[in-house]
Amino acid sequence: MAARGGCKAVVADKWSMRVVSDLGAGPRRFTDLKRGLEGISQRMLTVTLRSLERDGIVTRTVLQVMPPNVTYELTPMGTAMLEAATPLLRWSTDYLPRITEARADYDARPGD
Amino acid sequence: MAARGGCKAVVADKWSMRVVSDLGAGPRRFTDLKRGLEGISQRMLTVTLRSLERDGIVTRTVLQVMPPNVTYELTPMGTAMLEAATPLLRWSTDYLPRITEARADYDARPGD
Repeated sequence: MAARGGCKAVVADKWSMRVVSDLGAGPRRFTDLKRGLEGISQRMLTVTLRSLERDGIVTRTVLQVMPPNVTYELTPMGTAMLEAATPLLRWSTDYLPRITEARADYDARPGD
Repeated sequence: MAARGGCKAVVADKWSMRVVSDLGAGPRRFTDLKRGLEGISQRMLTVTLRSLERDGIVTRTVLQVMPPNVTYELTPMGTAMLEAATPLLRWSTDYLPRITEARADYDARPGD
């Protein structure tokens, strides 16, 4: 999530959207989230979760057990965000083959 | 727009989404787009438009006049994307005050 002063809209980046999507199924631990997000680094997931927590989209709960257990969960605002994002997520899944095709065409074009 | 191999969803970054949103009103020239996107650099807008063109979301038309005139326009796929993104854009506008409030609360918390 990012917004500038005067920016009329906040739009999620790819990783934020995927984390929110994964948390739609219920609370998850850091390690479980990381396992589900192929290609994300430890640091990128930490930064993404901190940003979502700061924006009020997720809550972070630390259980004082051994070993320590940190769980992330969508807030009601996060749930509303996921619902609003569903058509875009569906679009991106539906159109991925056409996007891939468009990229191959573009990359095959002579430079201009 | 960004996708990795095996990534199940393509989600737009903030600038891509704002460009697509502005192009929803009709074709625009580079300079007009730049004027409407407060805070974007020349280079960031160039990179964003090239990525959208590569993904098949916008077309770029060069008119061979003096001075040269380059126009950007949504493809049918871009129009479908904008329609799918509308609920998320609306969410982000509606929730911006609450996000701003959540950030202020977070930043006021003692470090942990």
